[in-house]
Amino acid sequence: MLCARPHPSTVDAHVCPAHEGLDGILDVVVESTRRGDGDDPLDLYRAQLPLPAAPRALPAGYLRATPLLPAPRLAAALGVGELLIKDESRNPTGSLKDRSSALAVELAVYGGFTDVACASTGNAASSLAGACAVAGLTARIFVPVGTPAGKLAQLAAFGARVMLVRGSYDDAYYLCEDAAKEFGWYDRNCAVNPYLMEGKKTCGLELADELGDAPADWVSVAVGDGCTVAAIGKGLAEGGHGTTTRLLAVQPAGAAPIVDAFAAGRERIEPVRAHTVADSVSVGRPRNAVKALRAVRASGGAFRSVDDAAILDAVRLLGEHAGVFAEPGAAAGIAAIRQARADGLIGPHDRVVHVVTGSGLKTASAAPAYPEIEPTLDAVRAAA
Amino acid sequence: MLCARPHPSTVDAHVCPAHEGLDGILDVVVESTRRGDGDDPLDLYRAQLPLPAAPRALPAGYLRATPLLPAPRLAAALGVGELLIKDESRNPTGSLKDRSSALAVELAVYGGFTDVACASTGNAASSLAGACAVAGLTARIFVPVGTPAGKLAQLAAFGARVMLVRGSYDDAYYLCEDAAKEFGWYDRNCAVNPYLMEGKKTCGLELADELGDAPADWVSVAVGDGCTVAAIGKGLAEGGHGTTTRLLAVQPAGAAPIVDAFAAGRERIEPVRAHTVADSVSVGRPRNAVKALRAVRASGGAFRSVDDAAILDAVRLLGEHAGVFAEPGAAAGIAAIRQARADGLIGPHDRVVHVVTGSGLKTASAAPAYPEIEPTLDAVRAAA
Repeated sequence: MLCARPHPSTVDAHVCPAHEGLDGILDVVVESTRRGDGDDPLDLYRAQLPLPAAPRALPAGYLRATPLLPAPRLAAALGVGELLIKDESRNPTGSLKDRSSALAVELAVYGGFTDVACASTGNAASSLAGACAVAGLTARIFVPVGTPAGKLAQLAAFGARVMLVRGSYDDAYYLCEDAAKEFGWYDRNCAVNPYLMEGKKTCGLELADELGDAPADWVSVAVGDGCTVAAIGKGLAEGGHGTTTRLLAVQPAGAAPIVDAFAAGRERIEPVRAHTVADSVSVGRPRNAVKALRAVRASGGAFRSVDDAAILDAVRLLGEHAGVFAEPGAAAGIAAIRQARADGLIGPHDRVVHVVTGSGLKTASAAPAYPEIEPTLDAVRAAA
Repeated sequence: MLCARPHPSTVDAHVCPAHEGLDGILDVVVESTRRGDGDDPLDLYRAQLPLPAAPRALPAGYLRATPLLPAPRLAAALGVGELLIKDESRNPTGSLKDRSSALAVELAVYGGFTDVACASTGNAASSLAGACAVAGLTARIFVPVGTPAGKLAQLAAFGARVMLVRGSYDDAYYLCEDAAKEFGWYDRNCAVNPYLMEGKKTCGLELADELGDAPADWVSVAVGDGCTVAAIGKGLAEGGHGTTTRLLAVQPAGAAPIVDAFAAGRERIEPVRAHTVADSVSVGRPRNAVKALRAVRASGGAFRSVDDAAILDAVRLLGEHAGVFAEPGAAAGIAAIRQARADGLIGPHDRVVHVVTGSGLKTASAAPAYPEIEPTLDAVRAAA
């Protein structure tokens, strides 16, 4: 993408040898837009995906189109003409990452791999662990020591092999890279594997199909590494909505290096020490910032940062006004819509899509203090 | 159902006045089998559901057909010819109960109610809270004090009004009943509302449609109150699979009053003090046992009880061999299939469907002790 140098397509293609580091992965070019059969996006969009001409490893229907649901009460609360929620928490393990992990597992099985490696504490790891369990592969997950037990429970349920690395997240990441090469494991890390983005792209393709002749003015999505927003932009463009729909990319204020680069008009990222409640996008050293910056610019869109208080308020708005329980990162876009509406970037009649990238069930915390009552109607009356 | 006395259809129909207590709710009779449009079961099966001829309160697609996925690795582990997983954890709040709560919310809105009441600590409550948030209704949830905070977090996310009743679950339940009558709230309690079963019935209708000319020999599902297995049996029968498919109904050994009644050939239930890890079916005093007993008998099926160790092993099997993270109650049927296969009730070539009624994310507990390693390849090699 940076140098436009062509590379042959292989199952385990990595970054461009001339552009290692923070510059991002290769860009996959697929040339047909023919639709396949069924409602599994890997079948429906097969001609646009880097899938081999071989039987699928995962059963058709493992992935399904996620719903795009109108949320008129939330639209009213935000003051936009129309708000639609693309609910990616309906995916098999509860996040958009299921799309990329499913594609990775297809490629790993086709390539004859028996193990797939990933450094992650969150949705990437659990989605990989789930898809590996379906296909009979071994998921190798590298996480730093100190990762909360709750996050490991879903990995445990799928029988993933987890290693707690004594060191930082970066230590776990580089060890995972080295181990994948050393032991011949398929590498499911967005920082080096360009095909993962193609899996995520199906979210944008679905949006374009679902919206059809009534494209969105804006699609809002949270940004950590940069891969997801770039993939959704690519899918929208391949679906014919590239010139009609602008991307609203949001980062938490405590982890906003791509927002800073966008504002400064540069592509080089200054890594930050990330600190935010939105753990799924708490990335201080993003690996696909260039792709994110270019996708947002190409769409005529914008970057925003929102603070943790606004993010938690957005979680509440999504739950109470749209009935969707999102993880904090997956709600940040709602806070960005509110901000962009307030300063006039988004108009009062705009049609806005917000992508809920992951379920709040994984990070569910304590409930508020509810009233304790005696079992009498008078007590109910007083408390109601 | 007990007395075959006809009752007019109203939005808030309750139990038969001649059969209050443990005898169960009315049976809803719908007469058309015409298919509607779309993939929302409340639209697709509208002619078979007690829905008014009015616009839907929830957006089309809030419910979607859940996938029915082959699990060949789990089939091999269980020694059955074919195993298919009906994954109800893909529903909007992660359980089959979303089907009944969605129908309840449609009826409540149509009936002009602004509040819906339910006594539950689990999936019924969270599904109601979610659907109410979408429709703009107030969910009134009654739970006994001492309910774990984790279970209340999902309710809090949807802005439900929760009351912690000083007393037992029965105290909370009866207070909820009384309060619904006193304050004019719509009653979403399976013990009195016959329409909820019609919502759940869509799971059986979907199964019949998905299986088509290749019906299952067995459908396994866990039983608490009795309503779900009866509803799935009703749906299968209305879908034309009533004479081809047998129901395998399972209760945890620590909460098996319906299993006992089935074995003794009686319809009268002896309440027990429930104690099991499978909290979603930990019911000592089931309210719809008669419907469950009759549905299973009519199908030529069987009841089984399985102990907690077998249930936890079934959770592991589902996760590791099928990539589905189920709550304990939703895995119990896998333990029953294994038991029924071992004693020959299920044959080695049988086609078996297991219904995963709810997600394991809501009850995720501690992860196992994973190995801690230094960030070196030698450490990976030793631990792998």
